[in-house]
Amino acid sequence: MLALELPRRLGAQRTNVRRAAGTARMTAVDSLLMIPGPTPLSPAVRAALAEPMRSHTSTENAASMRRIADGVRACVGSRSARVYTFAGSGTLAMEAALINHAAPGDRVVVCSHGFFGDRFSEIASAHGMHPATVQAPWGSAVRVSDVERACSESAAPAVLTITHVDTSTGVLADCAGLARIGRDAGAIVVVDGVCATGAVEELMDGWGVDVVLTGAQKALSVAPGLAVLAVSERAQHRRAQLDVHAYYADLQRWDPVVDDPTRYFSTHATGLLRALEVSLDEIAAEGLPARFARHRHVAETLRSGFAELGFESLAGTDVLAPTLSVLSVPSGVDEAALRRGLAERGVVVAGGLGPFAGRAIRVGHMGTVGDAEVSRTLEAASNALSDLT
Amino acid sequence: MLALELPRRLGAQRTNVRRAAGTARMTAVDSLLMIPGPTPLSPAVRAALAEPMRSHTSTENAASMRRIADGVRACVGSRSARVYTFAGSGTLAMEAALINHAAPGDRVVVCSHGFFGDRFSEIASAHGMHPATVQAPWGSAVRVSDVERACSESAAPAVLTITHVDTSTGVLADCAGLARIGRDAGAIVVVDGVCATGAVEELMDGWGVDVVLTGAQKALSVAPGLAVLAVSERAQHRRAQLDVHAYYADLQRWDPVVDDPTRYFSTHATGLLRALEVSLDEIAAEGLPARFARHRHVAETLRSGFAELGFESLAGTDVLAPTLSVLSVPSGVDEAALRRGLAERGVVVAGGLGPFAGRAIRVGHMGTVGDAEVSRTLEAASNALSDLT
Repeated sequence: MLALELPRRLGAQRTNVRRAAGTARMTAVDSLLMIPGPTPLSPAVRAALAEPMRSHTSTENAASMRRIADGVRACVGSRSARVYTFAGSGTLAMEAALINHAAPGDRVVVCSHGFFGDRFSEIASAHGMHPATVQAPWGSAVRVSDVERACSESAAPAVLTITHVDTSTGVLADCAGLARIGRDAGAIVVVDGVCATGAVEELMDGWGVDVVLTGAQKALSVAPGLAVLAVSERAQHRRAQLDVHAYYADLQRWDPVVDDPTRYFSTHATGLLRALEVSLDEIAAEGLPARFARHRHVAETLRSGFAELGFESLAGTDVLAPTLSVLSVPSGVDEAALRRGLAERGVVVAGGLGPFAGRAIRVGHMGTVGDAEVSRTLEAASNALSDLT
Repeated sequence: MLALELPRRLGAQRTNVRRAAGTARMTAVDSLLMIPGPTPLSPAVRAALAEPMRSHTSTENAASMRRIADGVRACVGSRSARVYTFAGSGTLAMEAALINHAAPGDRVVVCSHGFFGDRFSEIASAHGMHPATVQAPWGSAVRVSDVERACSESAAPAVLTITHVDTSTGVLADCAGLARIGRDAGAIVVVDGVCATGAVEELMDGWGVDVVLTGAQKALSVAPGLAVLAVSERAQHRRAQLDVHAYYADLQRWDPVVDDPTRYFSTHATGLLRALEVSLDEIAAEGLPARFARHRHVAETLRSGFAELGFESLAGTDVLAPTLSVLSVPSGVDEAALRRGLAERGVVVAGGLGPFAGRAIRVGHMGTVGDAEVSRTLEAASNALSDLT
């Protein structure tokens, strides 16, 4: 599948936004973005994005990059991972995680909990690797025995991938258990943290994970446009043994810049990096344990509120992610009409994907989202439902 | 060469910047960024970067992307080119331009006027293509006869690349003449417009150019983080015949999104796209002919001012780019000390690269730069020189 068809008439964020003269813009009441990324930005992050432009080789940008590396290591739970941050997206980070650690012809075991797990298989195939995809039924987790079999039934896998939270199903993976299987099979273990890193505890060193990747626009609460990877020493050794047929996503070409961020390889997204530095400062100020607890609390409050309105979570109760909820709409309710009703009330949620399309909404609740946003969302949903039923 | 060593002690932009409490930041007098990208941003572009976050599949973002495509087509001089804009950099756009139009084993003729021309050869080699690099002496243009020979002496080239303005030498290429040679040889003609598009006239359709690529942070006056490509129908046909071993930079995967920007392939850098839309509006309001004339005027004023101070342009007078100047420092003046002196006065310029390292400065003057910025730069240079001599 090359691209998903997404709703055309969302009308999101237009509702409450009015254009002022020229290019300036006034927002009467900002729409609330409750999709699973991009997520709303804090005032400090927005201010950082509007700072005067910086040189990509300045000592100031270099200092930001060093602080970002520290902040990312804290979020992923690693003392010494090498941190790469370059202009791109989570998809590009996924591709970099594969092509730097597996060669064409290599096996890649993919633990898939939905659309974004399957994407690893697509990327591997595009590069001539052989994906062995262990697919869970949507809403459930893969069976450990299936992953063990995939790791042992043929040549040893070069890489095993885990999607920490799959944005299509809201399933939270058992990273510790799956990583152990991958390590036992000798694979480089890659965790896609796009919908998790910064909102859910990750223990890269403790779990024996080699790569945690993410984008900036999810639980890290920055505007989209950055690919972020934390890479273990073991994975760096693997990279050194490979002949990578790529340029921009070849991590080895970035190494001199990681060592000394005043050096040049390709122009950094300096504004986004400054915003990421500010956001990581806010994350550190909140404290990771408190931040993880807030996400669990927000998820529980939102889900119990939606349950009272007749919505049901489509992910199993044992695998519920704290970052987004995939909720079946009450019977008789038109899902697209419901999302339009929410958008008219200034709350933007996403539609279901794949087998959940047309019967579920996806509500993101990560990053800056707290009780006020949950209340506003539930009130809008309640009112939108009243109009429809 | 994997990375260039750039000056470590530039101290740029720290000079006049003071930290306020917490993450907020006050700037007493903003440093003036006179490097060849990133370039200073207009107030409207900075405001756009700080707008509330948008959904990547919203109708609002889709409208921005359609307007961006129109604006880019105007800048590159094409009525119907397909415009791709995704999170990345000029380097990634260069890579996409090669891998979508040439296969491993294919010949690529590179017209190189310096470091960024040579980079095409590096990228081609990384993908198993065979670059035939026609290198001009730094500061001069390639000889037409050398390019003709490179095109005819072996298998026909799949791609011919032209760097419109090479940021290392300040040489402006004869795109029309070189493109004709490439087309006659049956090659897809790629123009790297990173240091040109939006500041120098480009006639993609008129010259028979198939791809014009750029980044957002140069003459388009946006923060870095976007790769931009305008692609001809002929190049799209070439892409359709190839088996591309890449995922994120495979333009075909973006095609459904270009057709309908509410569809999803990989998350757009929505904030940067909104800023690009605003900047293209400002470019249209100025008018392209007036904008090109302003760049020529600014370049002439700046160079004649620097000439009075004893600097000499290292690019030949017949190939001078209107977007940056590569200037040898007066004899007896320490180049690094001069740049420090400029930085202390709030003006940031870049050092020379390659054979020009240590004896030249590179001054960018594109995008929003006008007479006031030229005066401030010349005054700072004059004062810095006085301190040194």
